[in-house]
Amino acid sequence: MRSHGQAAWELLLPAAAAPARRRGRALQEALREAERSGRLAAGTRLPSTRALAADLGVSRGLVTEAYEQLTAEGYLRSDRGAGTWVGDAARSRLGGAPAPGATPDPGGETRAGKALDALGPRPATPARGAGAPAVRVDFRPGTPDLSLFPRAAWSAAQRAVLARLPHPALGYPDPRGLPELREALAGMLTRRRGVVADPERLVVCSGVAQASSLLGFVLRSRGLDAVGIEDPGSPEHGRLFASTGLDTVWLPLDEEGLRPEPLAASGVRAVVVTPSHQFPSGISWSAERRAALLDWARAVDGYVLEDDYDGDFRYDRAPVGALQGLDPERVVYTGSVSKSLAPGLRLGWMLVPEALLAEVVERKRTMDLGNPVLDQAVLAEFVTRGAYDRQLRRCQRAYRERRDALLSALAEHLPGTGVSGIAAGLHVIARVPGRYGPTERFLARSAEAGVALRPLEEYGTARPGDGDVRLVIGYAHLAPAVVTAGIRMVAEAVGRE
Amino acid sequence: MRSHGQAAWELLLPAAAAPARRRGRALQEALREAERSGRLAAGTRLPSTRALAADLGVSRGLVTEAYEQLTAEGYLRSDRGAGTWVGDAARSRLGGAPAPGATPDPGGETRAGKALDALGPRPATPARGAGAPAVRVDFRPGTPDLSLFPRAAWSAAQRAVLARLPHPALGYPDPRGLPELREALAGMLTRRRGVVADPERLVVCSGVAQASSLLGFVLRSRGLDAVGIEDPGSPEHGRLFASTGLDTVWLPLDEEGLRPEPLAASGVRAVVVTPSHQFPSGISWSAERRAALLDWARAVDGYVLEDDYDGDFRYDRAPVGALQGLDPERVVYTGSVSKSLAPGLRLGWMLVPEALLAEVVERKRTMDLGNPVLDQAVLAEFVTRGAYDRQLRRCQRAYRERRDALLSALAEHLPGTGVSGIAAGLHVIARVPGRYGPTERFLARSAEAGVALRPLEEYGTARPGDGDVRLVIGYAHLAPAVVTAGIRMVAEAVGRE
Repeated sequence: MRSHGQAAWELLLPAAAAPARRRGRALQEALREAERSGRLAAGTRLPSTRALAADLGVSRGLVTEAYEQLTAEGYLRSDRGAGTWVGDAARSRLGGAPAPGATPDPGGETRAGKALDALGPRPATPARGAGAPAVRVDFRPGTPDLSLFPRAAWSAAQRAVLARLPHPALGYPDPRGLPELREALAGMLTRRRGVVADPERLVVCSGVAQASSLLGFVLRSRGLDAVGIEDPGSPEHGRLFASTGLDTVWLPLDEEGLRPEPLAASGVRAVVVTPSHQFPSGISWSAERRAALLDWARAVDGYVLEDDYDGDFRYDRAPVGALQGLDPERVVYTGSVSKSLAPGLRLGWMLVPEALLAEVVERKRTMDLGNPVLDQAVLAEFVTRGAYDRQLRRCQRAYRERRDALLSALAEHLPGTGVSGIAAGLHVIARVPGRYGPTERFLARSAEAGVALRPLEEYGTARPGDGDVRLVIGYAHLAPAVVTAGIRMVAEAVGRE
Repeated sequence: MRSHGQAAWELLLPAAAAPARRRGRALQEALREAERSGRLAAGTRLPSTRALAADLGVSRGLVTEAYEQLTAEGYLRSDRGAGTWVGDAARSRLGGAPAPGATPDPGGETRAGKALDALGPRPATPARGAGAPAVRVDFRPGTPDLSLFPRAAWSAAQRAVLARLPHPALGYPDPRGLPELREALAGMLTRRRGVVADPERLVVCSGVAQASSLLGFVLRSRGLDAVGIEDPGSPEHGRLFASTGLDTVWLPLDEEGLRPEPLAASGVRAVVVTPSHQFPSGISWSAERRAALLDWARAVDGYVLEDDYDGDFRYDRAPVGALQGLDPERVVYTGSVSKSLAPGLRLGWMLVPEALLAEVVERKRTMDLGNPVLDQAVLAEFVTRGAYDRQLRRCQRAYRERRDALLSALAEHLPGTGVSGIAAGLHVIARVPGRYGPTERFLARSAEAGVALRPLEEYGTARPGDGDVRLVIGYAHLAPAVVTAGIRMVAEAVGRE
């Protein structure tokens, strides 16, 4: 059973935008055309009528009618209760269909040579083997599934917001953010992440990258000259802090969190950490290390930037509360909607200690005067009405299914592979046995087969000498069947028969 | 004849958001209630049915019906072809109505203690006489009329955008901006402002303030330590450039533009100017001074930031082309939608010389990774479909009417007042004869009467000794009747009988 490639929904969007009286027919024609052109390959599973209707912003009845019509025509095959697939009849029509399970790089256009949000995931360098075949399956971490963005609900909220927002709200914004959004976010973060969230201490910003820049400037103006980052961690932090005049220092991590001695010896007075689900290792910091970090911060009169980049996606256990809840005067907490809604919204938040608040707000003001108000008002509406929680549940279900597909595929096609960091987030760490290696060959062969991968060693200074191939595998943006196909393609490419 | 205060439309918005079947009745009830409560005072002129329908996002028929019904009931009075007013019948019901013509500070909530876009207009300090009566008419410059924001058209464009935008466009943005917006803006700016606009040189940013910060950082990293600003000009630039590590140097202006000798002697290698309609003096730089400035920039290997803050609003003559068109390699051109649509959108642009482009884009990237994509796509739609041009014409008509009301009121109530900078923009400079002064008394008396004014001397170093009272009067955000009433209130307060 294969699942739908994202590209299909793009094909259907113009049909969904057709005038109401032609919309149903336009949708059916677009579906047929998607199959004929090979964009929807035989065996592809279609989403539920409810899900597709929500994605396209059309009525569910319209989608149901289209499925029924095309099933009658043989384009689709439907099993009661088990879903709808692209049928056999269509297969015979296919010309140059794409390889089964492969999908065009869903984030391709927005990725190449561009940066991603702070800590997480930065597919900055092209996959190994530039000049090699085009990327057919892209496992580089960093992008959520953009087709999960709730277009219809967002559109309805936009309309409601424009109908009710008083005129003065369209004027120059409060640099801290729209009061109604700060109120809504404070409640949501308190409830979901166990932070201490006073709306007066919350600053709406454009995301974790801007939060890092804001804090970097404030720390620099207080005389700091370096910030510590986790090793392994995200090299992108180096670029962000460099733009504020700060150096970055790699600080070694073990399986419990930052090691206390190198931290103390480093001389830094500020660190960036991901204690809930460390990026990229996936560990959750131990309680002792959390306490030790805060003791250190108090002792050196320092600050901790907690990047809660994927705190919303937990699969097998209760969420780990944010570090900020333990000491709101030493921890700057930051998060965004980049993984839960869309990075293109450029909307995030930070909770700021009292001692830094005025300077952070003034920096935000000179940087851009404050975030745009309309998206802020829409997000406030989303959070207040429960639509944001629903969206998180929807993403969580989808991502867990993809993670499970990845774990199964690794076990089946690359047996012996150890996997860690699986309890949360949008990626895992895979340690592929040395017999498939070495790493250079593994990456080159995969790239030749059209699979883009990122090795763990790009995220820090460690160069383990055990011969295993360590990968950071992002799966959230890929349909389960694509995940499975991609791992199979890797196994075939690197196999040593 | 008085015109509607802005507050009234806020009162009507909840009614416009009512379910369709109840919307007509809700609108009528809201209008009645607005009159009863005194928010719509007797004699207030109502907008045309077309305008109100557009503002509220409801059908014109609904508004026509409401007007007819309330006219029949005596709430409204209608003169064929001349408009609709709040009628006499309503007047008798009024309790504590606001003073005729006065309006609650329309930007009040978003103003106090907050900053405005760069150059322009910054009502940063409260009106003189803090502790005095509340502001009833606010002539401080800087805010457009937020009720002119085309809510219905914007909402429709949002919906269209969400229906057609391909999924990858929701991912991490291009830090330079959405390609379709850069294309649309380049065409629009070439046509309207005579700039040389290559989409590859256009960077979408959050407004003129961010453009100043971006350029400031880039110039600082090239070793510059100061930027020249026009005197008189906007003190806000000092704060923006200070945040990038640059000092600011006031450079004296005469009636033709920046005086060449002090510029040459200052030692700076970058200046910020407003040559099309200088803020606040209102002059348009002479051709000689434009050429001299560019000669200077080439000679010192320097740069000019051209803030085209109100280049779109010309009343009595053809627009003056932007300076950038004369030398795109020496001039960084910047503008925004803050005066034409709404400051809350935080959406602007800059055209960047080739030599600075990569650094500006990298700064934009580390500042926020790029502007949010949805508003960018909506603006692209607006520009491409001609809706942006229509909006500019609509604002231009409204603002010209208000300017004319201001000039008439000054001539009638403060005779002898000289007015300059009237050909364009959202404000004028008024030189009130010394017999109404001195300035301190003039401002204090006006504040006691509830009228907020800003003296010219807050915008630079000059302290003219001729005894006249020099004011920067913003009028764009005030209905004509409010403008007239405000000037009358000032005249009554400062009169020397």
